[in-house]
Amino acid sequence: MDPSQVKLPPIMDMNAETITENTIAINAGNQDPRAKYVLERLVHHLHDFARETRLSTQEWMTGIEFLTAVGQTCTDVRQEFILLSDVLGLSLLVDAIDHPKPPASTEGTVLGPFHTHEAELVVPGTQISKDEQGEPLLVLCTVKDTQGRPIDDVMVDIWETDSGGFYDVQHADKDGPDGRCAMRSDKDGRFWFKAIKPVSYPIPHDGPVGKFLKGVYRHPYRPAHMHFMFEKPGFDKLVTAVYDRVDPYITSDAVFGVKDSLIVDFWPLESAVATDYLSESERENISAWSILRYDFVLVSEEEAGSLRDLNSMAALARLGKRMKVYNGLPVPEVD
Amino acid sequence: MDPSQVKLPPIMDMNAETITENTIAINAGNQDPRAKYVLERLVHHLHDFARETRLSTQEWMTGIEFLTAVGQTCTDVRQEFILLSDVLGLSLLVDAIDHPKPPASTEGTVLGPFHTHEAELVVPGTQISKDEQGEPLLVLCTVKDTQGRPIDDVMVDIWETDSGGFYDVQHADKDGPDGRCAMRSDKDGRFWFKAIKPVSYPIPHDGPVGKFLKGVYRHPYRPAHMHFMFEKPGFDKLVTAVYDRVDPYITSDAVFGVKDSLIVDFWPLESAVATDYLSESERENISAWSILRYDFVLVSEEEAGSLRDLNSMAALARLGKRMKVYNGLPVPEVD
Repeated sequence: MDPSQVKLPPIMDMNAETITENTIAINAGNQDPRAKYVLERLVHHLHDFARETRLSTQEWMTGIEFLTAVGQTCTDVRQEFILLSDVLGLSLLVDAIDHPKPPASTEGTVLGPFHTHEAELVVPGTQISKDEQGEPLLVLCTVKDTQGRPIDDVMVDIWETDSGGFYDVQHADKDGPDGRCAMRSDKDGRFWFKAIKPVSYPIPHDGPVGKFLKGVYRHPYRPAHMHFMFEKPGFDKLVTAVYDRVDPYITSDAVFGVKDSLIVDFWPLESAVATDYLSESERENISAWSILRYDFVLVSEEEAGSLRDLNSMAALARLGKRMKVYNGLPVPEVD
Repeated sequence: MDPSQVKLPPIMDMNAETITENTIAINAGNQDPRAKYVLERLVHHLHDFARETRLSTQEWMTGIEFLTAVGQTCTDVRQEFILLSDVLGLSLLVDAIDHPKPPASTEGTVLGPFHTHEAELVVPGTQISKDEQGEPLLVLCTVKDTQGRPIDDVMVDIWETDSGGFYDVQHADKDGPDGRCAMRSDKDGRFWFKAIKPVSYPIPHDGPVGKFLKGVYRHPYRPAHMHFMFEKPGFDKLVTAVYDRVDPYITSDAVFGVKDSLIVDFWPLESAVATDYLSESERENISAWSILRYDFVLVSEEEAGSLRDLNSMAALARLGKRMKVYNGLPVPEVD
């Protein structure tokens, strides 16, 4: 770069007071108002964090080493930064901000690091788990809009662990997807499948995030749950999960995902229902089966967008900020 | 972990308002008041950043992917997270907080990611650069305390790039340390060596930090400089560098390191001085040589500690925080 072309504010003699506004000024070259605003708040909070703690060089280096270890723990099938975001409550917060839910709709929760795009598209009634140790479970669901109308052709992703508490991708010797599938809702908004009863399990805690949890005396467990993701053009993408009411970790989920409206009961499967959904050989073992029913309610993109803008403007006004919506996201009213 | 042993506040039904205090509560198991305070401020600022920007899931994922790439760019000889901290002004800020300097002393600046511990301990007068393309430079320095008394036996680390702007560790085929050394000050606080005149150079910008700089239209250049680090028991460790006054990037250092008091002039070497320091064969080419003189002033550990406490308490009081010093670092007065 030709130095004569440098169009930056002169940056010299920085100290603990001047560094923030100058960093923000030199970063302001990007003309996208949203990028500029996000970056400005990032630098502001990063610096305020250091100033309010009077962060020492040694603590800073501990942070550098921790983040490096988190990055180096990531692989194609392990996302330690998402895990870190999860245990710090950031994932739940971002979901709450970005996918606001009107009262009648299904609440969202954390995606977690184990969703993949390799689930097979299956037909209704498929058993999604190959784990013979798992307790068999019949799952009957519907998906509707906020007016109670069934939504057909919704792409539903479902994923759960095996009975040992591990997702397929956590097994080095895995042989194709297991404990996960994709399916489409039918014309009445129904979808159903066979699975295994979810179990509680620890999030991966042999890495830096596990060390962090240990350091603050937190356990790494998530209560038993099953993940669902719903996508259909015109509807706000819903990432959610349902949680087992009787799980011992139900009030201390390591990633803050549990919501009262997402807590479910697994009931013994009644033979009248079994007749409609299980094969003859499956029915022979009916006492081993449980049933889960859940009715999901999706929010339209329009509803979600309006509510998001409304919530954003209200929350930012409470913070004393004058903002406007730009490409669906807030930026300062006067830049 | 036995769930009956879980001694955590019940965490359920988290939303954008309640998630912060609950995350802080569940993290408060560590009884060290400093760790608790730092973590509390970290969660607070991380969440406020998301709330003030109304961070979208897509932006959050961009952040996750960016941090992952930063971590995965780190190697034994490349520290991309330090580079990120440098270009965000955090490194300079932490140095300013942790190593306060009374007026008469030498200011500190960013360490950067290229210090190593493999520099050879050399005798006075050693040529530390093997680069024959570099312009030869004689460096005459002293190191004193704030009362003007020479300090002997200070361990001084010195490092600079080659004439192409690369540190030894950036060459895949490097053959032992080059452009760096360690030496000790003599009984009169003097140390001197031969080197090459530093050149401006871009920080590594083929990775995620380089992409970030490009995205905000910042150049990756640092003005020509030479790094120095001083260590002696009883004195506050000084990490600093001196910068070439005539460098075109002197007011736009990519890592905010330049301070007026650290700007130097490289003068032509006078023959009267050359007689004392150069060999006969070196003197034959005297017109190629420059000279750099600099007198460093170290702060005692005691002075630095008192000033650090004083500055911290004053800065935190201005923020309306009632704090006390605990193991040399601030924690809330009433916890």
